[in-house]
Amino acid sequence: MGDSVQTAVLGVSGYAGMELARLLLHHPRLNGCAPVFLGRAEAAGDASLTALHPQLMDNNGSASLRIEPFSWDLLKQRAVEVLFLATPHEQSREYAPIALEHGIRVVDLSGAWRLTDAANRAIYRFADDGEPVAVQVQAKAVYGSPELHRDELRTATLIANPGCYATAVILPLKPLIQAAWVDLERGIVSDAKSGVSGAGKAPTAKTHYMYAANNLSAYGVFSHRHTGELLEQLGLERGQIIFTPHLLPIPRGILATTYVTFKEKKSAEDVAALYQSFYADSPMVRLFGAGNLPQIQYSVHTNYCDIGFQLDSDGRRCVVVSCLDNLLKGAAGQAVQNLNLMCGWGETEGLA
Amino acid sequence: MGDSVQTAVLGVSGYAGMELARLLLHHPRLNGCAPVFLGRAEAAGDASLTALHPQLMDNNGSASLRIEPFSWDLLKQRAVEVLFLATPHEQSREYAPIALEHGIRVVDLSGAWRLTDAANRAIYRFADDGEPVAVQVQAKAVYGSPELHRDELRTATLIANPGCYATAVILPLKPLIQAAWVDLERGIVSDAKSGVSGAGKAPTAKTHYMYAANNLSAYGVFSHRHTGELLEQLGLERGQIIFTPHLLPIPRGILATTYVTFKEKKSAEDVAALYQSFYADSPMVRLFGAGNLPQIQYSVHTNYCDIGFQLDSDGRRCVVVSCLDNLLKGAAGQAVQNLNLMCGWGETEGLA
Amino acid sequence: MGDSVQTAVLGVSGYAGMELARLLLHHPRLNGCAPVFLGRAEAAGDASLTALHPQLMDNNGSASLRIEPFSWDLLKQRAVEVLFLATPHEQSREYAPIALEHGIRVVDLSGAWRLTDAANRAIYRFADDGEPVAVQVQAKAVYGSPELHRDELRTATLIANPGCYATAVILPLKPLIQAAWVDLERGIVSDAKSGVSGAGKAPTAKTHYMYAANNLSAYGVFSHRHTGELLEQLGLERGQIIFTPHLLPIPRGILATTYVTFKEKKSAEDVAALYQSFYADSPMVRLFGAGNLPQIQYSVHTNYCDIGFQLDSDGRRCVVVSCLDNLLKGAAGQAVQNLNLMCGWGETEGLA
Amino acid sequence: MGDSVQTAVLGVSGYAGMELARLLLHHPRLNGCAPVFLGRAEAAGDASLTALHPQLMDNNGSASLRIEPFSWDLLKQRAVEVLFLATPHEQSREYAPIALEHGIRVVDLSGAWRLTDAANRAIYRFADDGEPVAVQVQAKAVYGSPELHRDELRTATLIANPGCYATAVILPLKPLIQAAWVDLERGIVSDAKSGVSGAGKAPTAKTHYMYAANNLSAYGVFSHRHTGELLEQLGLERGQIIFTPHLLPIPRGILATTYVTFKEKKSAEDVAALYQSFYADSPMVRLFGAGNLPQIQYSVHTNYCDIGFQLDSDGRRCVVVSCLDNLLKGAAGQAVQNLNLMCGWGETEGLA
Repeated sequence: MGDSVQTAVLGVSGYAGMELARLLLHHPRLNGCAPVFLGRAEAAGDASLTALHPQLMDNNGSASLRIEPFSWDLLKQRAVEVLFLATPHEQSREYAPIALEHGIRVVDLSGAWRLTDAANRAIYRFADDGEPVAVQVQAKAVYGSPELHRDELRTATLIANPGCYATAVILPLKPLIQAAWVDLERGIVSDAKSGVSGAGKAPTAKTHYMYAANNLSAYGVFSHRHTGELLEQLGLERGQIIFTPHLLPIPRGILATTYVTFKEKKSAEDVAALYQSFYADSPMVRLFGAGNLPQIQYSVHTNYCDIGFQLDSDGRRCVVVSCLDNLLKGAAGQAVQNLNLMCGWGETEGLA
Repeated sequence: MGDSVQTAVLGVSGYAGMELARLLLHHPRLNGCAPVFLGRAEAAGDASLTALHPQLMDNNGSASLRIEPFSWDLLKQRAVEVLFLATPHEQSREYAPIALEHGIRVVDLSGAWRLTDAANRAIYRFADDGEPVAVQVQAKAVYGSPELHRDELRTATLIANPGCYATAVILPLKPLIQAAWVDLERGIVSDAKSGVSGAGKAPTAKTHYMYAANNLSAYGVFSHRHTGELLEQLGLERGQIIFTPHLLPIPRGILATTYVTFKEKKSAEDVAALYQSFYADSPMVRLFGAGNLPQIQYSVHTNYCDIGFQLDSDGRRCVVVSCLDNLLKGAAGQAVQNLNLMCGWGETEGLA
Repeated sequence: MGDSVQTAVLGVSGYAGMELARLLLHHPRLNGCAPVFLGRAEAAGDASLTALHPQLMDNNGSASLRIEPFSWDLLKQRAVEVLFLATPHEQSREYAPIALEHGIRVVDLSGAWRLTDAANRAIYRFADDGEPVAVQVQAKAVYGSPELHRDELRTATLIANPGCYATAVILPLKPLIQAAWVDLERGIVSDAKSGVSGAGKAPTAKTHYMYAANNLSAYGVFSHRHTGELLEQLGLERGQIIFTPHLLPIPRGILATTYVTFKEKKSAEDVAALYQSFYADSPMVRLFGAGNLPQIQYSVHTNYCDIGFQLDSDGRRCVVVSCLDNLLKGAAGQAVQNLNLMCGWGETEGLA
Repeated sequence: MGDSVQTAVLGVSGYAGMELARLLLHHPRLNGCAPVFLGRAEAAGDASLTALHPQLMDNNGSASLRIEPFSWDLLKQRAVEVLFLATPHEQSREYAPIALEHGIRVVDLSGAWRLTDAANRAIYRFADDGEPVAVQVQAKAVYGSPELHRDELRTATLIANPGCYATAVILPLKPLIQAAWVDLERGIVSDAKSGVSGAGKAPTAKTHYMYAANNLSAYGVFSHRHTGELLEQLGLERGQIIFTPHLLPIPRGILATTYVTFKEKKSAEDVAALYQSFYADSPMVRLFGAGNLPQIQYSVHTNYCDIGFQLDSDGRRCVVVSCLDNLLKGAAGQAVQNLNLMCGWGETEGLA
């Protein structure tokens, strides 16, 4: 690809879609090449983007930005090269195969193409699971974690952008598990907490201010959809990790407190060195080091995943704390990081 | 009425209904005489009250409390003497007349019967406005502000419990206007702010946590329904007062900042004395006095309306700040205060 | 003791002290026997209680309530029988022995007398640790968890009211550990989250709104003071449990997510039955049962500890969620529950 | 000045200082010309900027950013051309004159040099008020509102950056008052609400989470320091406007609800046209138009001031709502806007 690229976003009405629109509109490589914003034909009408999201208003012509009704003809006409799907997973199952057929590269923000193991996918109840096309498309999908799959992502045609919780739990665990330090017999616990934007824009009983504010609740215990991503990306078996999400009374941000036991005694320096080595070339991971724990406030409105840890005096029990912004590193920001890789650009461009 | 009374509540699913249920369940006069909780026949089924509102759970048998399907037969069978309507105003227009016919006294928490002037009622677009029955019933209704209408409330058969904003604006203004101190030519401004519970329990775009949290917004400028109550209870003409509500990022509580100009110079002592005299027999108004302004945190979870003021050095411009809990003094608490008056009980019983 | 009792509270300026004052002022048994509110001689002056805590204002004479300068003479003069210490632990170490000498029973809300094992106490660095008087007084102290030590509490002269986090973690674990179901080799994880009032009333960098709001942070990992209470009350060794506190952006409430592995497969019914049996006579524990997890909003402003759990399909891994109000069941409410036991009153009196 | 400029910031520990550091670090014109960050000699030590503000961490060398001890020698040595003072007003009174003497241009974020009328300055009790140097320096100061004083700001040597509340109240009123539409006899009311960052970083009783959260309080009634700025910039006399600030339970953002009466009937189109004309060349004002009121959430994290209004059906009473981010358009962002003007750069550079 050349200096710029023609992008399009399908599904800008939600929070991740809005953040994605904001990032793309300010991306230095897309300066002369405005993204096409698309809504489902029946829903979009010919709506104004800033009427939907007044936060995106500026005095540089943003008022003229429109959400256009989706059609494959329109994509062709606009010569779209990369399509972001910020759509429910059912729609992503439908659209991604067609886009690939049209030679359009896809970054899908839903859970549609993240899982290679049918058992892990079962929770989504995909209507087309196991059908030949779906199997072929799944085979092309690369899990969009730049820190784990940077090289494959550069040439991927379909990127399955990771779940927000999954990113927050995989990044702190991957180095420890790959180094075979963790005593998997004793089990890993990851107790994660997310802001309300993770629950989506639809008004529901659980996203009502009166439910979410001044409250904390656990949900999806032993049954959250992101668990499959943890198992596949970390090479774990069900039973080796418990992942428990909680709904925090904040707009955005995830903090995961992860408990592991090492097989052998380690020093804080050992642990810090392992992380530094693993993430040496990953500009979007910030390492806080031993005894210095990240907090949600530091990563919100950034694309960083922050990691810190505390090792017990026995040198075996370790608490790792990781934080990220669920709409950025957990969704739209990571999608742009993947776009950068796809296009051969600097990994952090448009994300500072 | 005797020592106790048989009460019933129609509409316990909302926030005001829940607070009313809580207050009645703990009311000392209703100890041996549990309220009947009712839902619309088609909606209620035979549901558990604590399943709907886990906050009401206790270990004294609350689990057996049921929401029963409403019917007039059931009210008769249970010998209900006072019916609380925590229903939308359309339903209150329908149910109140029938209850009165059955000889049941009514405390209505909706806006159905608060307004005597048809022009003020127009905003509600009541289907039966002007019909003979509605006219007769309206004539019986007493505006349920104990501080303004204590004596009529003792014998009322239909009490129109005031709006939450209306209570917060009327109580600080009534003494000043009745004393004819206020220069109405210059106009009164009441800038009011309310917590999200005032917007109701239905999940909507505006009650979504992501909309309400970390935000403030004005709404209903020149057009809020409670304006008519202000005009009628304060004896003002449209144009003499501007009332502007705002949505605060808190669960409950209202603060109104009200701006008046006195016709003649007054001292802070004058103003304080006027309030003390006016509210001498009103146990549910707390006077903070000159230069000591109430805050929302002090009145939340109580049935008090707090009032304080600051007089400018010119002795004419006065800022009055009033606070209350929109679900208690602004709704369910005031309804119980009215029940107490109706029954000849102490005005604060069950409200400490 | 007779029908009422003369109480006194030393230290009403903090949040727990304020809640304690509120509870005692409304306690039905103390109606004719107002508590004495005390401040340190040098600090108290002769201050008004409602000037310090406007929340405590009412129209029944609360304005006359005073905080009097502490002295043993005053306690004697007022014939104080039960003294609540809502003081820093250093002061409680000093005052409790003297009170006992004067024949005054003590409920201490600090960490001064909770721990019998010197190793666990080390974190407090008590100046008098190991001295004869301190040893004797410690021997008299009963850990103030009614659910675990109800009988000893009835006759105790010194009650060490438990830590807020400790209560939230001990109550869900005690039945499982006492039944010897838990595989302690695999370790217990308790990931706890508390509202800001738990951090005290002193303005600090961490209690600043800008730090606490929209944020979440872990702290005290492997080093929180309440850990010793967990070990002693649950009969665990250091290393068998990891307890991690977090600071939640809410005013009050604790939720603890506790992870255990059973030695043998259990059914959800087994677990529910164990809890029901253990807490059959404990009116301040609410059991939510299998798959029904409590949330902070349900227990805030109550004295309940709520417990629910989710058992994995393997019947061995179990996530238990417990909630309470850190200022009530976690402090002042439990102190009143202990007062009730001490005085032979109903355990829930004044706590509904 | 040339393509870049050497800047320095004194006082980066507060919220405005932090935002200013962030903006300058990312300003495209300062790419090769990093700002010098300064602390008071006795306080600064040689501290790390990112240790103080972890939010500023990146993976591009931010860790090496230091806060250096302030000295005039250091400023000279680094050839500083523009000095930002994010200091208390007493310090700004001291430092600005010396900087000007050294030929360094100053943007002062405090209230030190905003007021030309001694009566309005009285509230600050400046020790040097009226002394010859102070008088000379004050005469050079330009009030840093680009929308009102754009041309003078281009050549100013001392810019007095406006107060946050003042900006939020002046911008919506200036067009109406300059056009002589407002009936000043009837008085203007501006009821303003600000997030907690406006109260500063020092932990105090009022910035404690437990005080600010779930609360709303009015303060500084008839006595707020920013009132003088309103009078001078709007050409009003004391008594023609009441300005009342309130403390909102949000981190950042101001919303002002301003009430005016027009001398003559106007249409909504008239009002909209007046605003459009007045702000035609002001890229940092967003006009929402008639009946479309801005909310705090739209302007937070931007440098815009948003203005919308609602006109009563009488065409005379008008409610204007304005919003901005108190740390950006209300402080650091406006300071950078002023830097841009000073340097002849595009007014919005580094502020998108």
